[in-house]
This record gives sequence, structure tokens and C-alpha cells, in this order.
Amino acid sequence: MTQNKNKPRIVTQAERRDLGFAATREVLIRCGMEVLTEQGFAATGLDALLRRATVPKGSFYHYFGSKADFVREVMKAYDAFFCRKLDRALNNESLAPSERMRAFVEDAKSGMAKYQYTRGCLVGNLSQDVEALPEDYRVALDNIVQGWQRKVARCLELAREAGEIEASADCEALAEFFWIGWEGAVMRARLVRNSTPLDTFIAGFMAGLPRPRSSKSGRKQTS
Amino acid sequence: MTQNKNKPRIVTQAERRDLGFAATREVLIRCGMEVLTEQGFAATGLDALLRRATVPKGSFYHYFGSKADFVREVMKAYDAFFCRKLDRALNNESLAPSERMRAFVEDAKSGMAKYQYTRGCLVGNLSQDVEALPEDYRVALDNIVQGWQRKVARCLELAREAGEIEASADCEALAEFFWIGWEGAVMRARLVRNSTPLDTFIAGFMAGLPRPRSSKSGRKQTS
Repeated sequence: MTQNKNKPRIVTQAERRDLGFAATREVLIRCGMEVLTEQGFAATGLDALLRRATVPKGSFYHYFGSKADFVREVMKAYDAFFCRKLDRALNNESLAPSERMRAFVEDAKSGMAKYQYTRGCLVGNLSQDVEALPEDYRVALDNIVQGWQRKVARCLELAREAGEIEASADCEALAEFFWIGWEGAVMRARLVRNSTPLDTFIAGFMAGLPRPRSSKSGRKQTS
Repeated sequence: MTQNKNKPRIVTQAERRDLGFAATREVLIRCGMEVLTEQGFAATGLDALLRRATVPKGSFYHYFGSKADFVREVMKAYDAFFCRKLDRALNNESLAPSERMRAFVEDAKSGMAKYQYTRGCLVGNLSQDVEALPEDYRVALDNIVQGWQRKVARCLELAREAGEIEASADCEALAEFFWIGWEGAVMRARLVRNSTPLDTFIAGFMAGLPRPRSSKSGRKQTS
């Protein structure tokens, strides 16, 4: 697909000259985030990444000791980026708590559509390769997902307090269920190159939420 | 982890001499299934695979035109293997239909535990790399998952007929929801190297199934 081959670089060489050398580390990190949301660690060659970022190898080693160290920093930056994205949706007080989950999904859908579903989740991509990665990556990736789960759990607790879901609901378990499935939904959306799996997943998740007995908003259909 | 580095070959060289040359294609396919459930396409080098299978390169090209052709055959073999696995659980008439889903999960859990959670789903692994793969893989992978989904949908239809789930339940959508999430659960189980994500996912899925109004078996807790 030509649109995939010709994806724009995040910062052109000319722009980077304007930004100055200090921006190089930032450019490398952002380029790493782009590449590692598209493919796994094994498929990501340092040479190709540096060509894409238009950064010479010497500069790379000025900032990072190795490809493995670099990817550690990329993971941290991705986590920070993703936490901001989650917070925007899940802390949006103009929406009912359970609607904030849908808002997150709508935002994620736009994000995937913008890159023709070529980019998925960096954590999912690295998780798939985890056997071949440095052992500390496993802990780092798990910690990142735990952090995202806590945000969703807090949002579900607000939904519980608001009476949108049952008082006895286990919000931690529901949040874990959400993230387990969400990574699968992102993977499938990349496979079929459309948003249907994301829609199917959130519809199924919302429909399956335990509703208070008096509620009229319980599951009718999965989609 | 030493147990991962020293995984036994599926057929030793001595055994293969006994089996005769005709078994070579079979050995290569089975070895391909092992390797591609552990890692993606990009990480799978042909030389390493042939060393693992103890098959010379010349023999490989006697059976397969290229690595890409080989992986097409591995996908077909994995699909056949996995369909048998699914049928065993989902057609088990000694179990209530919805219990057959749990039986599949228990079988999958044993399968993952047997290899210390180093092996996941070949379809998931290839899906993660899909941008870099031949375009026909995308269709093939989607067709495989659609086939698995139809099996689960049929099982859920039986559950609906048996009154275990609501008469108005959309079994196709529920089956799609299941498979989307299940791939995420397998990925997470590999990340954390235990079966908790598989348990969390099936508990969440079963708890969220739409139960008939008169049923006492509806969702109480996700886990």
C-alpha cells in the first residue's frame, strides 16, 4: 500500500536544523515510537530507524548506549504519551464515567484511522516479542499496563459510585478484562485495517458490564 | 531462562532417520509451528529454523519455494491443528454448551503451561507483523480467525437453544468479541508467564454473557 510506504517523517531534516541539535534525542524517541507501534523489536533495525529519523549513528550513541537502552526510553515516552491520552478521556467531567470509556475508544479509533491502521500499541508489539527481549522489558511492560489498568479501574469506580454499574462490581478485575481484550482488539483492527474490531470490543465490554438491577441500560445485544 | 533456550526439538535427527526422508516436510512444518508460536515472522530466520529442524537448506527448497511459501503452509497446518483442538472442546456433548468454552480455555491453559508460556498463538504473532508480510497473509489470517469464530458462534447458539444465554443474544457478535479478547489474553499470559490473564478473560467473558431473565447464573463478579 503506497500510503504506508510513504508515511511522512515526524520531523523533516530542514525542520530539525531549525530545532537545533538538542532536538535530536526527542526526534529519535518519537521516531522510535512510530516504528515500534508499526512492528516488533526484531523487525526494527537501527540503521533503518536512523535513516527514517535522518540522524547519523554517532549522534544516536551520544544519547543512548544501545538499541536496548533506546527502546527502554521509547517505552517510557510512549507510556507518558498514552497516559495523557487516557487521562484526557477518563477525567473528562463533562461525560458520565462509563461514557468516558467510549470517549477513549473513539480517540483511539481516530488515532488508528489516521495511519490507515498500520500503527497499533507499542506495548502489544513488544509483548509479542517478549521472549527475545531483555528480561527487564517484561517487568517494564507489565508495569505500564498495570498503570493503564488503574486509570480504567478508577473510572469504573466512579461509574459504580454514580450507580451506572452494580455496587458489588469488581472494578479492578473489569479493568484488567478491558485491557486484556483491548490489546486483542487493536491487533485485529490492524489485521483487517478497519475499526470494526474496536467497535465490537467496546460494545461487548459495555454490554457485559454488571448493571444495577433497576437499570434499563443492561445488555441487550453485543452489537 | 534456561528451559526456554533448551527446548527439545520436536523430532531428533536419529528419530528422523527412522521416519525416513518423506517425513522431512512434516518435520519442517511442525518446527515452523513451534517457532512461529514463539515469535513473529521477522524474528524467524530460515537458517535458525533449519538448524532447529536439523534439515539442510537444499531439502527445504525441495519442499517449499521460499520462506513466504513455507509460512503459508505452516498457517494451514496450524489452523488444522487448532480446529481439531477447538472441536474436541466445543463438540464435547458430555458438557453443557457454555461449559465447553471453559473446557477449551482449560486445554489452552495446559498447552501454554507445558511450554512455560513461551508459545502463544501463531495467528496472533503473524497478525502483529502483518504490515511487513505478503498481502495475501492478511486475508489468510482473517479467514482462519473467522473459521474459529464460527465454531464458537455455533457453540454459543447451542447454549442459546439450551436456555443458558438469552434468546435474543447475537452469537456471531459474542464469538467475535471472544476471539478479539482471547488473542489479547494469550499475549498477556506470555508477558506475565502465567495463566491469570486467561482466567481473567474467560471469567469476564462468561460473566458478561447475556443470561435469561429467569436465570440465577448471571454476572455477579468478574473474577
